[in-house]
Amino acid sequence: MGEFELIAQYFTRPTRRAVLGVGDDCALLQMAPGMQLAISTDMLVENRHFFANVDPHTLGHKALAVNLSDLAACGARPLAFTLALALPRADPAWLQPFSQGLLALADEHDCELIGGDTTQGPLNICVTVFGEVPVGQALLRSGARAGDDIYASGTLGDAALALRALQGTLALAPQVLASARQRLEQPTPRVALGLALRGIASACADISDGLLGDLGHILERSGVGATVNTSVAITLLAARAYATGPHGSNGSSFSTEQALQCVLAGGDDYELVFTAPAARRGAVEAAAQGCGAAVTRIGVIETAAGLRLVNERGEPVENRFASFNHFPA
Amino acid sequence: MGEFELIAQYFTRPTRRAVLGVGDDCALLQMAPGMQLAISTDMLVENRHFFANVDPHTLGHKALAVNLSDLAACGARPLAFTLALALPRADPAWLQPFSQGLLALADEHDCELIGGDTTQGPLNICVTVFGEVPVGQALLRSGARAGDDIYASGTLGDAALALRALQGTLALAPQVLASARQRLEQPTPRVALGLALRGIASACADISDGLLGDLGHILERSGVGATVNTSVAITLLAARAYATGPHGSNGSSFSTEQALQCVLAGGDDYELVFTAPAARRGAVEAAAQGCGAAVTRIGVIETAAGLRLVNERGEPVENRFASFNHFPA
Repeated sequence: MGEFELIAQYFTRPTRRAVLGVGDDCALLQMAPGMQLAISTDMLVENRHFFANVDPHTLGHKALAVNLSDLAACGARPLAFTLALALPRADPAWLQPFSQGLLALADEHDCELIGGDTTQGPLNICVTVFGEVPVGQALLRSGARAGDDIYASGTLGDAALALRALQGTLALAPQVLASARQRLEQPTPRVALGLALRGIASACADISDGLLGDLGHILERSGVGATVNTSVAITLLAARAYATGPHGSNGSSFSTEQALQCVLAGGDDYELVFTAPAARRGAVEAAAQGCGAAVTRIGVIETAAGLRLVNERGEPVENRFASFNHFPA
Repeated sequence: MGEFELIAQYFTRPTRRAVLGVGDDCALLQMAPGMQLAISTDMLVENRHFFANVDPHTLGHKALAVNLSDLAACGARPLAFTLALALPRADPAWLQPFSQGLLALADEHDCELIGGDTTQGPLNICVTVFGEVPVGQALLRSGARAGDDIYASGTLGDAALALRALQGTLALAPQVLASARQRLEQPTPRVALGLALRGIASACADISDGLLGDLGHILERSGVGATVNTSVAITLLAARAYATGPHGSNGSSFSTEQALQCVLAGGDDYELVFTAPAARRGAVEAAAQGCGAAVTRIGVIETAAGLRLVNERGEPVENRFASFNHFPA
């Protein structure tokens, strides 16, 4: 299969919204009046973002999901995406399920593939995604103000827990691993929640590198600090129900410290961390319910710079939770 | 140097045109009324698109140039780009010249870096570029009509000649190699020519995989055929003046057959191949002169499907010139 047959067979579909899709030097998009274009790009590298033996169908899903998650964090509605792909070889047994997983999620969000590039090389998947947001309504990282509540959506830490189990550093019962692994390999971008939070959230980011690290970006861009309640945050780990110390029920075995590490610094969650004025608690709750997403209030924004952790009694907890860094010092 | 310091130091600059640049979940662009967004993405892989020891400054230039070339082919004016980068390590001795080469070309075209991604992995550079073009004025591959002239801009084949010399399959005199190598490593995207050809050219593509292959895309999308004059095309090789058979002047040595291979199928030229009605010859000439670009009429579009080659006497020449294919059958 040649380069152009590969593109034609797996990655070319009629466009519905774009003026021009795959097959020319450029794709063409026409924005609706009053809309701004939101753009994000994420690159996934073998053995860094995924295991070499990962199911290609879930990999196709994840490659787009992590990008849609960035649109969600801005409150942007998905429009289209491009796919640049370096492949060791043109293998239909890989390309077929990869493209199916990718395009199934694309269809779910009415986000169409409009262009890309295919080359020979070590497996590398680079998606650039485009969304629209009404002028001035994008959720930014820079809008958090002292007194705002801090929320996280969904569950946190299960992806990191699955990663550790797959790496052999902790034990999970089969059904717990299956559920956590689903979170690692097929994250759900919170697009509907991001849209519902427009006009309500004061700041928002998606959680890709770890809750505290991504919240840290909000604090930095907003020029504020925060206190996060770790005893609330730890309840966000879905697998927690199965852990009861060194030898938990059903064969799962991880410590409270490991659980907290996963929730606060695990990464790969693709949930949203966002802030909203305390006066908007009802609106936040209604927005979340309206799109079937759970949100949990985990802390508060403060004037004093820095990120403080407290336990259920309000006592300080040492912050020993470093988020993922591709080039650690 | 951590991931975020790396981004801050080398890839973050104030935005002039974008609503929001590097540092949030998404970048934000606002299109001017009446404009469409042109999008293209190209991925460069080490040892595939460039040698591992290539000067990082020229590599930065080329990574953006090959993308700007796609905008040129559509007649779009550059606006902005994103950069996704997989790096084996965060090495300032590489990052500094790479970012300088990249941003120097960006400044030349007033095209700003608005976002990206940085990850650890085998060296891979993925740029996605954004341009604007008035509604309905984009140059497409699909507009060629029987009777149209076929043109190529600039010089062709010298990049491929340099590649062969660097690979040791032919000899070039030092000054010829230096000049050809400049074409390989620092191509000049024909942005001004693409803009000048709006309303004049009937179809256009950039020459990245080889003249005949890229012209073939125009023929396919336009549902037409063509005849190309090889004795005119071969004059487009700038290095030709130095070749005089098996042992050319100044130590250069390549055959007419090798020269023709480089011109017709070499690739990496980043010139434009375009078509225009014969009645617009004066307009084409004026457009080219207006932006200081040479254009050469190399053939004619015909109703009969297929691509035919002829020599200076109009006699058929066998088409044995296959363009680059990343996944040859």
